[in-house]
Amino acid sequence: MHKFDVVIIGAGSAGLSALREVRKRTDNFVIINDGPWGTTCARVGCMPSKLLIEAANAFQRRFSFDEFGITGANQLGLDDVKVMQRLRKLRDDFVASTVKTTDALGERAISGRVRILSPNRVVVNGEKFNTRKIIIATGSRPVIPSSWPELGKHLLTTDTLFELETLPKSVAVIGMGPVGLEMAQALSRLGVRVTGFGSRSFIGGISDSFINQTAVKLLTEEFPLYLGNRANVVVNSENNAITVRAGEVAVEVDSVLAALGRQPNIDDIGLDALGVSLDEKGLPSINPVTLQIEDLPVFLAGDANKRFPILHEAADDGHIAGLNATSDELICFKRRVPLAVVFTDPNIAMVGQSFSSLDHENILTGEVSFSNQGRARSAQLNRGALRVYAAANNGQLLGAEMCAPAGEHFAHLLALAISQSLSVWDLLRIPFYHPVLEEGLRTALRDLSSKLPEHGQSDLATCGSFNSEALD
Amino acid sequence: MHKFDVVIIGAGSAGLSALREVRKRTDNFVIINDGPWGTTCARVGCMPSKLLIEAANAFQRRFSFDEFGITGANQLGLDDVKVMQRLRKLRDDFVASTVKTTDALGERAISGRVRILSPNRVVVNGEKFNTRKIIIATGSRPVIPSSWPELGKHLLTTDTLFELETLPKSVAVIGMGPVGLEMAQALSRLGVRVTGFGSRSFIGGISDSFINQTAVKLLTEEFPLYLGNRANVVVNSENNAITVRAGEVAVEVDSVLAALGRQPNIDDIGLDALGVSLDEKGLPSINPVTLQIEDLPVFLAGDANKRFPILHEAADDGHIAGLNATSDELICFKRRVPLAVVFTDPNIAMVGQSFSSLDHENILTGEVSFSNQGRARSAQLNRGALRVYAAANNGQLLGAEMCAPAGEHFAHLLALAISQSLSVWDLLRIPFYHPVLEEGLRTALRDLSSKLPEHGQSDLATCGSFNSEALD
Repeated sequence: MHKFDVVIIGAGSAGLSALREVRKRTDNFVIINDGPWGTTCARVGCMPSKLLIEAANAFQRRFSFDEFGITGANQLGLDDVKVMQRLRKLRDDFVASTVKTTDALGERAISGRVRILSPNRVVVNGEKFNTRKIIIATGSRPVIPSSWPELGKHLLTTDTLFELETLPKSVAVIGMGPVGLEMAQALSRLGVRVTGFGSRSFIGGISDSFINQTAVKLLTEEFPLYLGNRANVVVNSENNAITVRAGEVAVEVDSVLAALGRQPNIDDIGLDALGVSLDEKGLPSINPVTLQIEDLPVFLAGDANKRFPILHEAADDGHIAGLNATSDELICFKRRVPLAVVFTDPNIAMVGQSFSSLDHENILTGEVSFSNQGRARSAQLNRGALRVYAAANNGQLLGAEMCAPAGEHFAHLLALAISQSLSVWDLLRIPFYHPVLEEGLRTALRDLSSKLPEHGQSDLATCGSFNSEALD
Repeated sequence: MHKFDVVIIGAGSAGLSALREVRKRTDNFVIINDGPWGTTCARVGCMPSKLLIEAANAFQRRFSFDEFGITGANQLGLDDVKVMQRLRKLRDDFVASTVKTTDALGERAISGRVRILSPNRVVVNGEKFNTRKIIIATGSRPVIPSSWPELGKHLLTTDTLFELETLPKSVAVIGMGPVGLEMAQALSRLGVRVTGFGSRSFIGGISDSFINQTAVKLLTEEFPLYLGNRANVVVNSENNAITVRAGEVAVEVDSVLAALGRQPNIDDIGLDALGVSLDEKGLPSINPVTLQIEDLPVFLAGDANKRFPILHEAADDGHIAGLNATSDELICFKRRVPLAVVFTDPNIAMVGQSFSSLDHENILTGEVSFSNQGRARSAQLNRGALRVYAAANNGQLLGAEMCAPAGEHFAHLLALAISQSLSVWDLLRIPFYHPVLEEGLRTALRDLSSKLPEHGQSDLATCGSFNSEALD
């Protein structure tokens, strides 16, 4: 029987990223995919959600038109059929570009559901393959509580939302994580009557209660947000009306969008045949810097390992798994600085160590509100806040959380500073052009630096040692 | 006669920044200002121009509404009176915040035109003061060629443009530097028939011809742009019609906006009394890292020294001059990484060393077009390009030029990388969230890194030395 060097299970972002590395080193591989080809990101994740958001945000800007001196905003309307058509048209383009590679693989790309028989053997479509290495990258799917009643087409997930021809009149978005928040705000801005439900008081992955309060306050201005109680869905058996209840609240809606997170697609792929122990969720333990499952020739990458269901982490996972599955020795990789962005308006973003994970005794915090920030006021975007955290002893930047205009951009700047172990003073030494939103970030950095031990008289570095005494 | 520790001449951005440092160390100072109080930036520069631009860009977005599924864009109109009223209202707020400090100074803030009598003596309003140190921060004013005919109120500069009650029907913008480009695009988007004239083939401070071509092409889609010939203004003596001619082109316009740069306000402040030699523009030589004029107790800061007429540089100048005018020994400061942003759409930005100043034999270039970038397509912002430059031997980032969506944000990220002497690989190690415009920047970085000597198999760093051989 033929023995492959590598079998890659799953052709999503992690699988394709693994494939890129594997095929550099061997032609003796196969990639097997269950269900539609094309990544979660392009098909039902990052891309279609952003297409919905961009349309929603463009429409929302009409509320600032009067202030800007633009007339006729009340004549604007929304053609939701067209919104969804554009979404699917561009989405299909994005998907097409992700399937190009596998389409060209011929027999080395197989459609079917794999079952693992041993660390060196799999079966698909009744055919068994031996392999030196396996990369499991089977992805994830939306969680739907088993306690919910049958809702038929009134139950939406990101798997079905983007297929709608028209938007529902009202929707309960259950789950106020990144996806729930993004879709709740976008749908609300597109004219859907949205009610948001979150079982926790924190939303969108924020861990700093000040930033969380800021985000909750801003979002609540757009749609009602009920936090702190688990939502239950009830269907009236007489008229089929759907009611969502949480605590004291009951809201009747047309549709329910389940945004309760994603679960790994590992249910019956045969992880038990690997001979290693599985946790209560059915997952084996992996080494996050090699992606290896215990000491097996098997790697678990992407959403399937439930580490971070985020594209750039899935791509790195695939890259690491692909390299390690084709290297003679295992390479251990430094993972990137944590970064999460929620594409609400203002953006929510968390970079570096989360506020909740920091040792609050030994950090200092700098803060800024964007309510009165110059550029933000010019652009009618003056809402939100940002907090940055640094080590109290030496000013090293550790993390930041924000709900702020241009948050997605600040997050990358801060990620570079954190990944280079820079201090607040190092970051203050860059030029901040005027007037930019980054000057708001600078205000937070200066707030933080003012609390640190005296560092000198200036943000600027001195260039002659002969006079360094004057500064330090 | 009373002797001050410091006389600050000029209460603009540089003067106020100097004041902040001076008053930390002495109360024995005076700040003297000629003309209106409030900074150039807040009164007639950065802030009002951005207010015009934000209104223009908000209005311009209507052209993407049909694609987004938003109906009724053709019902939108512009109330230019209201645009200008909002501009002045917010402008006045920004100005008010800059004059708060000097308003509170009482007799230590004097209105009047200073004449320097010696390095330790000035006269204002007929009164003479002795002083240990002088900080000259007299700012700049728009250049108006003496060859132009008298145009009366039809001649606009940034000193008068923002005072208009209504916008002109047509305007020739003469000078395609940062201010000319920003105002030409904004006025055009606000419905003014704009013609742009630039005497050089490069615009907006760009030095990379590929980026320049990109910018010229995109701007020309919005208004005609005539480059390479000096523009002359002619008034018909019979009907007072204004014609602007450049090369073969002649355009009749209502108004002319002079955007030919700014000249230092140093004409008759008595620099000749300092006893140092002045260049052909009447400027003494200064040390850019101390701001001292030769070996005198006199400092020249901000636009008045004609170094960079940019707010953050003026503020640093004032800071350095203020510190050095009140320190026993001179401190020499490292200046920030060069950064220039032009707030066109897409943004033009230059960071680090300019392409033209680099040794083209020893650099490599990475490039990206935003025409097909994922997030840019989602947002209907897929226009523009970016190029990044690095040392060919070690991949150290040296500079970048761009005409790209979110260019102002990329420029700050690149400024941090350059200020920390990072390499292309260091910057590639940050997380790039998906989907963000920064992924376009990453494409340029990867393009660049692919041309550099082999660096390893991965953007990621390895974390165990035991296996570093496998990577390098």
